[in-house]
Amino acid sequence: MDVTRTLARFVVDHNAGNVPPEVRHEATRSVVNWLGCAVGACRHVTVERALSALSPFSGPAEATVLGRGDRLDVMHAALMNGITSHTFDFDDTHLKTVIHPSGPVASAILALAERMPVSGADFLHAFILGVEVECRIGNSVYPEHYNVGWHITGTTGVFGAAAAAGRLLKLNEQQMVWAMGIAATQSSGLREMFGTMCKPFHPGNAARNGLLAALLAQRDFTSSDQGIEAKRGFAHVLSTRFDAAAITGRLGETWEVALNTYKPFACGIVIHPIIDACIQLRNELGLKAEDIESITAKVHPLVLELTGKKTPQVGLEGKFSVYHSAAVAVIYGAGGEAEYADDVVADPKVIALRDRVDAVVDTGMHEDQTHVTLRTKDGRTHEKRIEHTIGSLDRPMSDAALEAKFRAFAKGILSDPECDRLLGLAWKIGELPDVAAVARATVPDVNE
Amino acid sequence: MDVTRTLARFVVDHNAGNVPPEVRHEATRSVVNWLGCAVGACRHVTVERALSALSPFSGPAEATVLGRGDRLDVMHAALMNGITSHTFDFDDTHLKTVIHPSGPVASAILALAERMPVSGADFLHAFILGVEVECRIGNSVYPEHYNVGWHITGTTGVFGAAAAAGRLLKLNEQQMVWAMGIAATQSSGLREMFGTMCKPFHPGNAARNGLLAALLAQRDFTSSDQGIEAKRGFAHVLSTRFDAAAITGRLGETWEVALNTYKPFACGIVIHPIIDACIQLRNELGLKAEDIESITAKVHPLVLELTGKKTPQVGLEGKFSVYHSAAVAVIYGAGGEAEYADDVVADPKVIALRDRVDAVVDTGMHEDQTHVTLRTKDGRTHEKRIEHTIGSLDRPMSDAALEAKFRAFAKGILSDPECDRLLGLAWKIGELPDVAAVARATVPDVNE
Repeated sequence: MDVTRTLARFVVDHNAGNVPPEVRHEATRSVVNWLGCAVGACRHVTVERALSALSPFSGPAEATVLGRGDRLDVMHAALMNGITSHTFDFDDTHLKTVIHPSGPVASAILALAERMPVSGADFLHAFILGVEVECRIGNSVYPEHYNVGWHITGTTGVFGAAAAAGRLLKLNEQQMVWAMGIAATQSSGLREMFGTMCKPFHPGNAARNGLLAALLAQRDFTSSDQGIEAKRGFAHVLSTRFDAAAITGRLGETWEVALNTYKPFACGIVIHPIIDACIQLRNELGLKAEDIESITAKVHPLVLELTGKKTPQVGLEGKFSVYHSAAVAVIYGAGGEAEYADDVVADPKVIALRDRVDAVVDTGMHEDQTHVTLRTKDGRTHEKRIEHTIGSLDRPMSDAALEAKFRAFAKGILSDPECDRLLGLAWKIGELPDVAAVARATVPDVNE
Repeated sequence: MDVTRTLARFVVDHNAGNVPPEVRHEATRSVVNWLGCAVGACRHVTVERALSALSPFSGPAEATVLGRGDRLDVMHAALMNGITSHTFDFDDTHLKTVIHPSGPVASAILALAERMPVSGADFLHAFILGVEVECRIGNSVYPEHYNVGWHITGTTGVFGAAAAAGRLLKLNEQQMVWAMGIAATQSSGLREMFGTMCKPFHPGNAARNGLLAALLAQRDFTSSDQGIEAKRGFAHVLSTRFDAAAITGRLGETWEVALNTYKPFACGIVIHPIIDACIQLRNELGLKAEDIESITAKVHPLVLELTGKKTPQVGLEGKFSVYHSAAVAVIYGAGGEAEYADDVVADPKVIALRDRVDAVVDTGMHEDQTHVTLRTKDGRTHEKRIEHTIGSLDRPMSDAALEAKFRAFAKGILSDPECDRLLGLAWKIGELPDVAAVARATVPDVNE
């Protein structure tokens, strides 16, 4: 079975009319979420450092660094937007593989769409196909590939970016096969980099390198015809397991983007049920921090293993503290980037409540579950059980919640009218005559 | 043991005065050979396709595509020169690991040296350190890493390029550690690509990505401190064996570049002893093709396994034919690119002699050995035994032979005076006030 060729043919030949409307809507939600993440992080120090290193080497200023006035060549813009969209680790998650699918794919093709006219319909279709390619390749090697130490968003993202860009460039089947091969031979990204600036670099690099693969293939730069499945190709070299049918089975019948999820909170996903429960209790009871005697959560063992930091000192540590997270959920009713700022972590009011939070391992809890008991100072007890946390496949974030998340990101970057306009364009991206308008609308009109 | 930090500290702190003169000379020979390979392939279709794909995205035209008038930004030039230098597969070989060391390292730093002034002494020192880094990392994981399917020139070359560029950029120790980490997380290149344009893409990509790693690290873009040795770092993810001492042991006492070798012939290394023997017989006996009744070579089993093509039709197939190779060795006294041109492979005179060549497996022969028996039509028999083929570590190519190889490459690209001038600069590269002169001297002064 020619796995690479089968996949390439699918990407080249697929008819946009055969994508179900609900899949297109989920793709739109993915793009909206991606865009918000990218805009939100556009002034982060990670981004500033990368931009100052790379700007001197940029080619024609054809594409936008989302949220900023800077314009770079298409490949550098793809790199930068892949970085920004994953900087807060707040982007989308394909839970079956823990791939963050949008960063590599959307970053590559929105940049490309600023160089050549691309309709919203073509953009969304290419995005869906790119996500399909990266997630199916991920499915074929997960979890062995991830367990050995590969950051799967980087290693599979390069294929997704190549496929999506190749589709927009109208590659023929052989060129698409080569694009997959050129992607395969650039596949990289190590989990050792987690916790450093290299983590968000991975989806950026995947976007840039996937775009490069498509552009080279467009000029008939040759590669293996079996880049994915050959003995010395991607799957066998980078994984101890390879299920080819996960790539080629039911192509066009199932859609991986339909399985995409979005984080409502800016921290490790294992804390999400606890934050969810605390926000619900707060809103239902109209609670204030000073009313609370104690909060006790029964949690899955991973919660304490990964996020058991009792006395976080800075924002990043706060993300690894279930105690801080529960406290800000009650005080602010949220768990966004703002609630993990350094000054919030150091706020005496937050610390006072944090110290009254307890988390107890309950091996009966699955990862998506929690049971929170909150005691108020008047002696009453309140309970909240979460079976599936908000943001999971079973309880997805609503469009309105995604929009609220987007607005929180845009705050401080865009004015409210600018944010309204961008959101309007983003929700309608599939209908736009030219998607470059979305990229341009991320840039604030600052009178400097 | 902090492997990455130890290596980074060595690269940052090493004093050029502590490099023995014979090591510097071998480095110069490596650079001369690399330069010839790059110039020779500069008009190859692989290069034309890559250049047409990438030129539209180039930044400031600060660096030379060697041998051509085209100027690109430093990172694209590094990519292109890495590609050209490996296109003919005629570049240098670190036999212990089959790494082609110069392509990634020299391509990165000569391009960089066109953007910032770099003396020949600094260039050669950085080159030696870069080769040391890539080959030591290669030593630490070879052969398991190669056997699983990694193209080791790509996977380790990115470290060498990062180290050499980082040295020229005067990174501090921590930045060099990060540069190694950013290199590690880009490490890629699959052996499945052999026989396609992606093979020479690998050293080019390593050059570009290594340069990127150094430039990002210069701006304090963070990475793991243990990119090489960590559980989920380069060595454990990309190899089943890791010998840390091969990286950190006797640093500054032994030099991998001193173990570099150069191919005298433009084909698979297993045929080299047979070509060597045939050229010697031809020259000693003043033979002509029509005088010869038969040629029989006793060969190592790999010769027929890899190069047993009896009736090659085109040039590339000729490189996998011990029969064609022996025939052109007798007829032309050479085995360069010219002897593997399509029209030479199809030449009736070559075919007539090729059909009188036989190769017989002799399990007593090692890879570097052959015994050739040549019968002339007058009934006489001539024998030539090769114990170590020309170009091996035991019988290295002389400086004069390297220069002749260089001239053969430059033919058709540069005029004789241009070639003289370039060679003059290349042999003295370690003494030049500004090595950018070498890059500029590769460009022919064509009156178009």
